[in-house]
Amino acid sequence: MPNKTANPWTILLTRPIYENRWIRVVEHEVLNPAGKPGIYGVVHLQNLATGVIPIDADGYTTLVGQYRFPLKSYSWEIPEGGGDPGVDPLESARRELAEETGLIAREWMPLLTMHLSNSITDETAYCFLAWDLEQGVAEPEETEDLRLRRLPFAEAYAMAMRGEITDAMAVASLMKARLLALEGALPDAVAGLILR
Amino acid sequence: MPNKTANPWTILLTRPIYENRWIRVVEHEVLNPAGKPGIYGVVHLQNLATGVIPIDADGYTTLVGQYRFPLKSYSWEIPEGGGDPGVDPLESARRELAEETGLIAREWMPLLTMHLSNSITDETAYCFLAWDLEQGVAEPEETEDLRLRRLPFAEAYAMAMRGEITDAMAVASLMKARLLALEGALPDAVAGLILR
Repeated sequence: MPNKTANPWTILLTRPIYENRWIRVVEHEVLNPAGKPGIYGVVHLQNLATGVIPIDADGYTTLVGQYRFPLKSYSWEIPEGGGDPGVDPLESARRELAEETGLIAREWMPLLTMHLSNSITDETAYCFLAWDLEQGVAEPEETEDLRLRRLPFAEAYAMAMRGEITDAMAVASLMKARLLALEGALPDAVAGLILR
Repeated sequence: MPNKTANPWTILLTRPIYENRWIRVVEHEVLNPAGKPGIYGVVHLQNLATGVIPIDADGYTTLVGQYRFPLKSYSWEIPEGGGDPGVDPLESARRELAEETGLIAREWMPLLTMHLSNSITDETAYCFLAWDLEQGVAEPEETEDLRLRRLPFAEAYAMAMRGEITDAMAVASLMKARLLALEGALPDAVAGLILR
């Protein structure tokens, strides 16, 4: 009996299609799980995706607003950015949080790891919860035209639940932080701020 | 004062790179928000992404397991599939649910809409909650080598919270269904089954 969780695809040939700093596209000639010939185009991400929910001493978080070029629309999100695959995702999230918002957090915990679009890409997202904050100076990259919005965690969570935040990393992170707080699975110091 | 939510990017030239049944890759020569020249590669999805959490009369749901080619790993997820952009996402989700699991649901509600990876793609996911189920016969596509697992909703939710389910649509949908049930925002008929 075959191993049902083993790779049922056979790769016959791999053709490089395109590469830039952010993505690498390849097309594979394959035999599909039924043994029939076909193609599979895969988008490899050159970076990890990282995100962080900062929670300050008043129970407020900071959202980042920016125009998302691929969507042709404006999007409010948690602070997010790409991380070098050779660097600990927490360090990349720490750097992005500082660059985008100027915030420095003394306490960090992993919130979730997800695959964002697994039928086409290998993009992996690492999201964190961060608290015990200190305000420094933001230094966004020039490709970023960012707005910041400080608001109670409960309001950011409500925006995600109402569909006013649509970015998958932000939606899932805000919901998971709320659930962990409700379930008593967060340190008291930050759970109280989230449920405030 | 400029409109801060307007498009701060200028497209100078658009170059088609690659297209198959599932994706279309283009490279834009741009001026970035700082007015400096650069490139932006965008992956357009040819289909909408749809997903559904079916809940049966015992409070059980059905997960679908498959090897995800881009990740090179096995993944348990809610029933998901691509939908023609010209078709109501609910109809596409209904068709996918029937094809993959054989389940037919009489009651449907929209659960969430998300953008899965908005720095690179325009992929949009539409997820639903479905209940009042009838069992028909599954008819998976030949590119799919699927396993089905029927389990209590609470167990599927716990798998998402523990990181054993990593697919973004599945993780976010399972958490949102639980939160809506806790908040009294679901019809009693299905809330009781989810909180069982």
